[in-house]
Amino acid sequence: MVSAIRDMHVRGAPLIGVAAAYGMHLAVKEAKDEQDLTRLSAILRNARPTAIDLTWAVDIQLKKISQLNAFAEKAKTAFSNAELLRKESIQRCRQIGEHGYLMLKEIAKKKGSVNILTHCNAGWLACVDYGTATAPIYVAAEKGMKLHVWVDETRPRNQGMLTAWELGEEGIPHTIIPDNTGGHLMQVGKVDIVIVGSDRVTANGDVTNKIGTYLKALAAKDNGIPFYAAMPTSTVDWSMKHGSEVPIELRSEDEIHYVHGLNSESKLVRIKLTPDKSRAENYGFDVTPARLVTGLITEKGISKPGDINLI
Amino acid sequence: MVSAIRDMHVRGAPLIGVAAAYGMHLAVKEAKDEQDLTRLSAILRNARPTAIDLTWAVDIQLKKISQLNAFAEKAKTAFSNAELLRKESIQRCRQIGEHGYLMLKEIAKKKGSVNILTHCNAGWLACVDYGTATAPIYVAAEKGMKLHVWVDETRPRNQGMLTAWELGEEGIPHTIIPDNTGGHLMQVGKVDIVIVGSDRVTANGDVTNKIGTYLKALAAKDNGIPFYAAMPTSTVDWSMKHGSEVPIELRSEDEIHYVHGLNSESKLVRIKLTPDKSRAENYGFDVTPARLVTGLITEKGISKPGDINLI
Repeated sequence: MVSAIRDMHVRGAPLIGVAAAYGMHLAVKEAKDEQDLTRLSAILRNARPTAIDLTWAVDIQLKKISQLNAFAEKAKTAFSNAELLRKESIQRCRQIGEHGYLMLKEIAKKKGSVNILTHCNAGWLACVDYGTATAPIYVAAEKGMKLHVWVDETRPRNQGMLTAWELGEEGIPHTIIPDNTGGHLMQVGKVDIVIVGSDRVTANGDVTNKIGTYLKALAAKDNGIPFYAAMPTSTVDWSMKHGSEVPIELRSEDEIHYVHGLNSESKLVRIKLTPDKSRAENYGFDVTPARLVTGLITEKGISKPGDINLI
Repeated sequence: MVSAIRDMHVRGAPLIGVAAAYGMHLAVKEAKDEQDLTRLSAILRNARPTAIDLTWAVDIQLKKISQLNAFAEKAKTAFSNAELLRKESIQRCRQIGEHGYLMLKEIAKKKGSVNILTHCNAGWLACVDYGTATAPIYVAAEKGMKLHVWVDETRPRNQGMLTAWELGEEGIPHTIIPDNTGGHLMQVGKVDIVIVGSDRVTANGDVTNKIGTYLKALAAKDNGIPFYAAMPTSTVDWSMKHGSEVPIELRSEDEIHYVHGLNSESKLVRIKLTPDKSRAENYGFDVTPARLVTGLITEKGISKPGDINLI
C-alpha cells in the first residue's frame, strides 16, 4: 500500500485516505509487535507528505485498534473500520455533489447552461465514487442540467486525462485544454465557475491543491468568476493555521523530463521531452490563499473559507 | 515561406518578420504581374494571424518595391531590403539586451544574483540573434552576472525546450518547470523578475504573447514581482487601441492530443496523450492587460506601458 500511494497507483486525497485505512489492516497483519506496528504506521503515514487524509486515516485506525490487545482482533477491526470509512467516503462525496448541484442550478437559471473549469483529477478515480470537484457535475448531469467542463491537462502528470476519461465514460461534454489556457477562456467569458478538489485546507481557509490551482484562482478573481474547492471536512487540517505551513511535495524531475502515451501501434511508451543539459523541478502542490476562494463545498454544506465560517 | 511560418518551422515574432521580408523576395520572383504579387503578398500576410511583425514586414517590402517597375529590380530590392531588416533586427535585439541588462543589474545589486522566469521561447531561435526576452539574460551573462532562469515548459508546443536548449548552449544555469509551477515559485520568493516576449503590443500597452503569459503576470502582480515584456518597437501595433482587438490564433487540437519526443532508441516519435472520446481546444495566445505590466523593454529603452509612455 505504501508503494501504491507513493508511486501514485492510487491518488487523490479521499482515495489515499481510504486506501491508507486498508493499509493499516495490512500493517496489523504484518506487525510482529506493538513497536513494529508503530514503525509500519509511520512508514504508511509518510508515503506522501501533502494530503492530510493519509495522516487522518492512519490516526483513526490507530485509535480504533488501540483498545484491543490481540492482533487478530486488531486486524479484524481495522478491516471492518476501513469498510466503514469507504462507505462514509462515498456518502460524503454524494453529499458534496448535492450541495454543489444547488449552486450550479443558480448559475444555470441565469445562463441556461454552465461552463465549469477544473484542474487535476478530483473525480471518482481520486475517490471511491462521485469524486469531490466532479461530484456536483455528476449530480447535475444526473438531474439533466446542460453543462460543459473545461479540463486542465494538469502537467506534469496529466491527471486531466483521468478527468477527461471519467467525463467521457459519463457522457458529459468536455474539452481538454493546456494549463496555460484557462486565463484566456475566463477573459473572453467562456468559464462560469471554477471547481477544484483539495489535499489540505488549513484553518484559515487556504486551499492546498495540485500545482497550478493558484494561477486559476488568480484568473478567476481577476475576471469576477466564482472559485470553489470541494472536499470532505476530513480534509480540513485544524492543526495548521495557514497554508504556508503545509509541506509541499517535491517529486522526481523525471516526471517532467519524460511523458507517457500511446505510440502509433497503440502501445504505452515513454518519451523524453527535455534537452539533455537541462534540469527540471517538480513541485506537486501549491497553496491558494483564502482571499481568492469563493467557498468550500463540503458534505455538510457550502462555507466561506476561514475558521469561523468552517466551524 | 508560407508553410515555414504557418507550420512553425520559423516562429517567434521577430523571426517571422525577417522571414516574411525574405518571403516577399520569393513572392516577387514568383509573381506573374502586379495583381499576382498582391495575391501572393496576401497569402504570406495571412500565414499566421497574431504576430504583428508579419504584416509589418510585408507592408515595408511592398512600399519599398512599389516605386520600381521592372520585376527584376523589385526582386533585387526586396532581397537587399530583407538583408537590411535582418541586420537591423540583430541590432535591435542587442539594444533590448543592453537596456534590460541595466535593470537586471539593479536587482543583482540588491540580491547578489537574479532569478528570472520566462515563458515560451523569445530567444535567438525566435529572432535572428540574442532574442528579445533572453537578450538581457545573454548580455548579463556576457558581463559575468550571476543568474538563473526558470523556463516554463509552455504547453502545448513545449517551446520552453527551445529556451532550455538555447540556455544550455550558452552555459546559463536554468531549470525547466511545468507551466503550473511559476505561481508557487513566486509565492515562496524564488523569482525576482518575469521577462517574456510579445507578438503584438497594442497602443494602450496590452501585451499579446504565448498563451499562459497572462497567468504569470497575475501571479507576478500578486507577489509584487516585476513583470516585463521585451520586444522591438516594430511589435507595437498603433492601429489597435486595446488588446481585445487582437486576433487570437486557434490552432489544431492535435497539438494537444499528440506530443513529440525521443523514444528509448533516441528516435523522434509522436505519442497520443488524450482519451479518444475527448476533444481539445488550442488557443495560441492571450492578452496581458497593461495594468499587470511593469514595463516594456524596447531597443529604444524601457517604457511603462500605455501610448503616452511609449511615444
